[in-house]
Amino acid sequence: MAPALHEWMIRTRTFQALQGESGGETGVHDDFVTRSFAGVGAWIMGRNMFGPIRGPWNDEEWTGWWGENPPYHCPVYVLTNHPRSSIEMEGGTTFHFVTSGIDDALEQATTAADGADIRLGGGVHTIRQYLSAGLVDELHVAIVPVLLGSGEALFAGLDLPRLGYRMSEHVATPAATHVVMTHS
Amino acid sequence: MAPALHEWMIRTRTFQALQGESGGETGVHDDFVTRSFAGVGAWIMGRNMFGPIRGPWNDEEWTGWWGENPPYHCPVYVLTNHPRSSIEMEGGTTFHFVTSGIDDALEQATTAADGADIRLGGGVHTIRQYLSAGLVDELHVAIVPVLLGSGEALFAGLDLPRLGYRMSEHVATPAATHVVMTHS
Repeated sequence: MAPALHEWMIRTRTFQALQGESGGETGVHDDFVTRSFAGVGAWIMGRNMFGPIRGPWNDEEWTGWWGENPPYHCPVYVLTNHPRSSIEMEGGTTFHFVTSGIDDALEQATTAADGADIRLGGGVHTIRQYLSAGLVDELHVAIVPVLLGSGEALFAGLDLPRLGYRMSEHVATPAATHVVMTHS
Repeated sequence: MAPALHEWMIRTRTFQALQGESGGETGVHDDFVTRSFAGVGAWIMGRNMFGPIRGPWNDEEWTGWWGENPPYHCPVYVLTNHPRSSIEMEGGTTFHFVTSGIDDALEQATTAADGADIRLGGGVHTIRQYLSAGLVDELHVAIVPVLLGSGEALFAGLDLPRLGYRMSEHVATPAATHVVMTHS
């Protein structure tokens, strides 16, 4: 990832607090970060967000990028084609590995969240799958003036209005233009 | 085109003046519109920007979308696979039809512009061809919070940094986020 892409987020108070640091900016960017964590009762992510291992889990040593106490503090459903036992971490995070697809992962996450929100932790392929299925209630995108050059395209080939999404918020700042789209 | 996409532009003083109207906004948006017309000595555009006709020019009746006195006031080179004689319009606009590709169109436009700038009038396919060839010195993009759903993708598959482009300006406003990239 290009660091410049996340600069607006890294300097917020909420992000700094997640790193155990004090200080950081408040305001528009911080509000978006705070809101993204508020009221979340479960996460869903693709396996490439969980770790660099591809194919079968050869050993069970890898437990994510985040150390003993990941910043989730709730159940996290990891989409994978390769079964693996759940991992209970410190601080309330448990990683569950779902091999039965996005609908089943959402169902399990919904049960676990018990009325709270479910947050998609990426990556692009996972978000595209849920977008295509019309299952994303709200998507926040931060547009940053950086030319990445290559990578996965978040919206390529997705007819978002036809899928039921509409633009609901737009906040432009020198560091990032925030847009929020919602599904109706 | 979605009208909302061009709202920021339509309400500028410069755009209103082009329509023969007085009034309109000054400021950031107007500055970008003014700048886009300043010092231009020739235009290049794809034939779909010139008109709705596809294939051979069956008659010579169609002379563009803009009436007798188009807003160009200089030579305009139209990229097409189908030869046609040049058309001299009122107000200094002459449409030339180039069947020998983008390099030749640029060479002809450069000669005609005689040191002034050459502006690409679109569409997406034409801009992508010139971007890919590294021939665009400066590209202004206005990002507007509208979900279009489908259409041509301006940058899909283009590795802009590798092609020599870098981001040089970024002005974010409620109506549009303007970015400018330049070729080095």
